[in-house]
Amino acid sequence: MHIGFIGLGKMGFNLVLNLLRHKHEVVGYDINETLVNEIKAEGAQGVNSLEALYQALPAPRILWLMIPAGPLVDKVIEQLLPFVQAGDIIIDGGNSHYQDSIRRYQQLKELGVGFIDCGTSGGTSGALEGACTMIGGDREVVERVEPVFQQISVENGYLHTGPAGSGHFTKMVHNGVEYGMMQSIAEGFEVLEKSPFPIDFEAVAKLWNHGSVVRSWLMELTQNAFSKDPKLESIKGIMRSSGEGKWTLETALDLGVPTPVIALSLLMRYRSLQDDTFSGKVVAALRNEFGGHAVEKKED
Amino acid sequence: MHIGFIGLGKMGFNLVLNLLRHKHEVVGYDINETLVNEIKAEGAQGVNSLEALYQALPAPRILWLMIPAGPLVDKVIEQLLPFVQAGDIIIDGGNSHYQDSIRRYQQLKELGVGFIDCGTSGGTSGALEGACTMIGGDREVVERVEPVFQQISVENGYLHTGPAGSGHFTKMVHNGVEYGMMQSIAEGFEVLEKSPFPIDFEAVAKLWNHGSVVRSWLMELTQNAFSKDPKLESIKGIMRSSGEGKWTLETALDLGVPTPVIALSLLMRYRSLQDDTFSGKVVAALRNEFGGHAVEKKED
Repeated sequence: MHIGFIGLGKMGFNLVLNLLRHKHEVVGYDINETLVNEIKAEGAQGVNSLEALYQALPAPRILWLMIPAGPLVDKVIEQLLPFVQAGDIIIDGGNSHYQDSIRRYQQLKELGVGFIDCGTSGGTSGALEGACTMIGGDREVVERVEPVFQQISVENGYLHTGPAGSGHFTKMVHNGVEYGMMQSIAEGFEVLEKSPFPIDFEAVAKLWNHGSVVRSWLMELTQNAFSKDPKLESIKGIMRSSGEGKWTLETALDLGVPTPVIALSLLMRYRSLQDDTFSGKVVAALRNEFGGHAVEKKED
Repeated sequence: MHIGFIGLGKMGFNLVLNLLRHKHEVVGYDINETLVNEIKAEGAQGVNSLEALYQALPAPRILWLMIPAGPLVDKVIEQLLPFVQAGDIIIDGGNSHYQDSIRRYQQLKELGVGFIDCGTSGGTSGALEGACTMIGGDREVVERVEPVFQQISVENGYLHTGPAGSGHFTKMVHNGVEYGMMQSIAEGFEVLEKSPFPIDFEAVAKLWNHGSVVRSWLMELTQNAFSKDPKLESIKGIMRSSGEGKWTLETALDLGVPTPVIALSLLMRYRSLQDDTFSGKVVAALRNEFGGHAVEKKED
């Protein structure tokens, strides 16, 4: 199939390599010209504008976006609007909010343009060697691209989850689950780290990947991390987040679903970004007020 | 090796079958005579008392306990005390508290009897086909039984974690991590269940096991469960616990480790055991007191 690919970052670049390996013809575009040149060296056609990308494709066109979620997706779609024709399909493979995807689906449907929201999991290695794809969209639109999704995914790693928005919704919840699993693994290792025993963390992670109940890809990554740095002394415990855990929690709140573990996983990430906390100052001050407990003063 | 096995429940029975498959001679004992007869039918020697078990074994003896944690372990050890001789080894394969294991290790060491705490993971299928074993104890004692642990475990599923107590400590933390992972998976599926999309839970669990970041044995079990009952309509959401999550949290509190996810996983299990809560009544009453918000009255 002939595919226009917009966004050649870590995920996008590897997905294009994956598509090329499956004999698809890819026209690649990125605002970073270096990446365009690199993908040309890999066998794709490279272009330097969205218009050139569009013109390089036969009708009906498949336009695959792999760009940061948010206003940029709307901006790229807006820039494509002067060109797109009925029958074209736009795939959003990024981590967009499912409500944005429903809105974009409706906007494009009025023009006869298909929209598919594609939640993509498996990290950069999955993008290259076989991802897990969660696909929302109209059946007749999804069916036209289904073989491609199946090829770039591992076996059984593709699912048409339902109508537009459901792919990104499922991916959002997947990431929420991921937050909780990661935090749980992390808390366990901190208990081991503070334990009275001289535990070899890499050995325990490896052990737990062989026959235990908690064996998982995340535990394999834990083992990898400890194999490189046995006590993780070279890195700080700063846990950033890219939005999907927050959206899962916001959605859970809207739906009235009690999700304390996903909530606390997110809040512990926020806590990790703070050196000190204002809430900590308040509690310290109150303990001092009612009980005379000493507070620790800031140094000048 | 000649092994005396005490406790032929779901885990113990399967472990004996696993040992027999590896050509060990097993003398089995359980207070339930039916289980003793069943293990005899499988090729083990069956006995009807601890004394008979002890006498059936050549010196030095290997005595493997697979019985419920707590006072019963002390009781069985006490009943063995009149017989045991220096050089014998007692293995506790159950889910004992690591501090109990350290105490028992010290008690038996004074008699010259070796003690090994063996945390056993992988469920009943793992016990039968290959477990994950976390072993605490003196190196020279552990080395005498090491080949047996390696045989009944999956490849790389055996680790001598350190001194006495460290095996059960590691298993305790493993279970704490398991609580958090399970609760996180569960919360994600409840968000899916309350979502506006007609999600097929079994299909999503299967999908997430193929190429996604959250692929794991627990997700495979999730898929199994949904394959039997697509919306889990036949079961109640009552989550019991057998102590190790509580111990992990107690240990984290003693060590000063913030483990909110493991804590909330445990507390959500407790909440699931309650039809109604006293704390809920208190909050409802207070909302009524200050804001006149209606309370729901109990029916007569």
